Amino acid sequence: MLFDKETYTARRDRLKRKVKEGLILLFGNNDAPSNYPANVYKYRQDSSFLYFYGQHREGLVGVIDIDNHKEYLIGNDIDIEDIVWFGAVDSVADLAAQSGVEHSAPMSRLEELVTQARTQGRKIHFLPPYRHDQMIQLMDLTGIHPSRQREEASLELIMAVIDQRAVKTPAEIEEIERACAIGHEMHTTAMRLCRPGVSEQYIAGTISGIASAKGCMTSFPTILSMHGEIMHGYPSPRPLEDGRLMLCDAGAETNENYCSDNTRTTPINGRFTSRQRDIYSIVEACHDHVLDIARPGVKWWDVHMSVARLMTERLKELGLMKGDTEEAVRNGAHAMFFPHGLGHMMGMDVHDMEGLGQRYVGFDDEVQPSTQFGTNCLRCGRRLQEGWVMTDEPGIYFIPALIDEWKSKGIHKDFINFDLLETYKDFGGIRIEDDILITASGCRMLGHERIPYHMDDVEEFMAQRTN
Amino acid sequence: MLFDKETYTARRDRLKRKVKEGLILLFGNNDAPSNYPANVYKYRQDSSFLYFYGQHREGLVGVIDIDNHKEYLIGNDIDIEDIVWFGAVDSVADLAAQSGVEHSAPMSRLEELVTQARTQGRKIHFLPPYRHDQMIQLMDLTGIHPSRQREEASLELIMAVIDQRAVKTPAEIEEIERACAIGHEMHTTAMRLCRPGVSEQYIAGTISGIASAKGCMTSFPTILSMHGEIMHGYPSPRPLEDGRLMLCDAGAETNENYCSDNTRTTPINGRFTSRQRDIYSIVEACHDHVLDIARPGVKWWDVHMSVARLMTERLKELGLMKGDTEEAVRNGAHAMFFPHGLGHMMGMDVHDMEGLGQRYVGFDDEVQPSTQFGTNCLRCGRRLQEGWVMTDEPGIYFIPALIDEWKSKGIHKDFINFDLLETYKDFGGIRIEDDILITASGCRMLGHERIPYHMDDVEEFMAQRTN
Ligand SMILES: [Mn+2]
Ligand SMILES: [Mn+2]
Repeated sequence: MLFDKETYTARRDRLKRKVKEGLILLFGNNDAPSNYPANVYKYRQDSSFLYFYGQHREGLVGVIDIDNHKEYLIGNDIDIEDIVWFGAVDSVADLAAQSGVEHSAPMSRLEELVTQARTQGRKIHFLPPYRHDQMIQLMDLTGIHPSRQREEASLELIMAVIDQRAVKTPAEIEEIERACAIGHEMHTTAMRLCRPGVSEQYIAGTISGIASAKGCMTSFPTILSMHGEIMHGYPSPRPLEDGRLMLCDAGAETNENYCSDNTRTTPINGRFTSRQRDIYSIVEACHDHVLDIARPGVKWWDVHMSVARLMTERLKELGLMKGDTEEAVRNGAHAMFFPHGLGHMMGMDVHDMEGLGQRYVGFDDEVQPSTQFGTNCLRCGRRLQEGWVMTDEPGIYFIPALIDEWKSKGIHKDFINFDLLETYKDFGGIRIEDDILITASGCRMLGHERIPYHMDDVEEFMAQRTN
Repeated sequence: MLFDKETYTARRDRLKRKVKEGLILLFGNNDAPSNYPANVYKYRQDSSFLYFYGQHREGLVGVIDIDNHKEYLIGNDIDIEDIVWFGAVDSVADLAAQSGVEHSAPMSRLEELVTQARTQGRKIHFLPPYRHDQMIQLMDLTGIHPSRQREEASLELIMAVIDQRAVKTPAEIEEIERACAIGHEMHTTAMRLCRPGVSEQYIAGTISGIASAKGCMTSFPTILSMHGEIMHGYPSPRPLEDGRLMLCDAGAETNENYCSDNTRTTPINGRFTSRQRDIYSIVEACHDHVLDIARPGVKWWDVHMSVARLMTERLKELGLMKGDTEEAVRNGAHAMFFPHGLGHMMGMDVHDMEGLGQRYVGFDDEVQPSTQFGTNCLRCGRRLQEGWVMTDEPGIYFIPALIDEWKSKGIHKDFINFDLLETYKDFGGIRIEDDILITASGCRMLGHERIPYHMDDVEEFMAQRTN
């Protein structure tokens, strides 16, 4: 456990005060089968469960009966055959005590507790499930079909969880710094291995090994590709090619499941071409611009739009865009190059709390999500708060299918120079991503050691690497 | 695709002839969420789907209408926003053509096909599902609750699939050899890294990186522990200790999802103690004994029991067991030391086809599974056939909880010397595992390069390693 039982108890007390009444169910995760029931993926606890209980064992459910001031940790104990196969583990009663929970009970008790509360007409609060085994369990408990569970999830509980998890304490920041240190080793290793002839898969696999060796695992499936223009370009067995760029978006999770998330774009032969320098310098400027303007009280929406305007200005200088900058950005023309959001919250989930609903995590009454192409991918818009951790990840991409589509339909033809753009179809994409902490007066980049990203630093690193 | 479309078509034709009538559903796997819906584990296709279609894309279902001589590949095509995020991919119609399937259709068609067949009173054949998303889908299609789907699965289909997948063709053996080559690098790397002070997690994570760099991923969660007596001892962040043994059970999957599975037990300081040599030499002898006696027509049950007798004989020489060997083994006394089966089939699943039901994969009318402690873990008993791939993995373990339990209850006290056994409680466990192919006249170990396992070879490797 990362914290002492008083911390977990205090977190649950605050949750109770916010939700006010009813029965709260917090499902821990079970093992997830890969290719047959007993062959399971690396265990990943649910982040909210971990936040409120600190327990990493599978097969647990937390129950908080607000009305009757009772808390239970539910789970089955193991027998001698389990001990032979999996070793001795603490009893559920022991786990409950460690987390400051008064009662423990076997899984069979869960149905009783839920049925009783339902009979009494009390509200059953649950978070939107994303594991299908839990959906089946929840269906059996409540009669709600999996297809309706997301909409039937408790908004009070969702908002109360977001309220707490969004703001990171100094101890949580320390743990994120640990994840960033692993991320630093992953990215510098990827850059060291990067050269013509080495496969994407080889480099991605090798750095995933670092994540598993030094922490729990990668915080998400590594994106590593010569085709940086594909947002989630999974590594292929193809060898890297001279003259292209390798985009690597990767992060680590510590054993306590706090995340890092960085992206670097590296010239495969170690030197940027002048065309690559033109585009890279824009992304670099956008990335650094965020560091200047992100601070408590500023809307992340406005930071995103400020970056979009800067990018548009600079793309106009290159002749790739044209027309009025404000108008281009208002119409979403920049999304041809920058079709995703500037960044997302990060914490115990790499897209922190995304499963609870991006609408609730990143937006509020003041700032609503957009439906415009590109801007609809912005995962957060509301005013920044001290203690939030965000990613700062602008990018510029040349996506052949999108170029063809917009060109043929004449979309944003007043703002985009399609003739010049046509010549960039083999370019790929560039993204630079770092994790930032919103401080009292501004923000700072996380990670004690910087992964090189300024062009000269990158070229110097590539020239001096030894392996 | 590993094979041409004629191979997949021939496999499905043979399946149809064996199942005879009805509608066969073969579900491909979907992405599996880790900590929120969009953060998914490394994709793993279902092995049977892969065997009959060769397609690695998620979101596909194969439908074989035997009665009407029609085949469909069902799946949804992607749109421009998907292309931006995941890149351009082949259409479902293209995938169907690649696999030799005449028709393709969107997912909405699946319900129609199933409903029509059910209305006509025709049998719907499906395999036992193990992914919970598929259980929900199957429930919606057939009305069968997930808790009953395993028993309602089609025995005809299960047996027809096992019939084909059990016997590996030379091309499949070549692919398994590729997995073994990756496994060789994983295990020799683990041995190179093995020394006092290095953590279990560090070594396990590093070799999982090799599996991901050179293939798809590990074939199962790596077991790597100083506590080899815990059968599935997951690697901990604890440092390895001088004087103990490191048990490493690990394997790779190629990009085509064929597996390897080996175990080595290495002295952490590079030299076996004389007590470790005593026990290791028994496991070594048992391992090699299998190579002498496994051949087509011999029951794997008999091979397991022959190993159990040899082990008992040798443990009697050490004074750890006593009494009549035959009687001790018949009563299951050896299971104190060897509480698992000698080995399992291996192929596209590391425990090949385990999800279809071990009862059907490993046993038949002639050889039935046992309920005796230890022997109940034997995953196969029936007569070996040419072309089967089995693991040969005897082990000896000293499990404190099991020693206490049997001693206190007097279990098998006529065959076990509990006083001496008490002094081995800090020993740990030893297992040696290799993959063998049943040939026309006997068997041979797979893997072109041998991972050292004879004691002198292990000590020589440890002495000469450089890193
Ligand atoms: Mn990110
Ligand atoms: Mn095995």
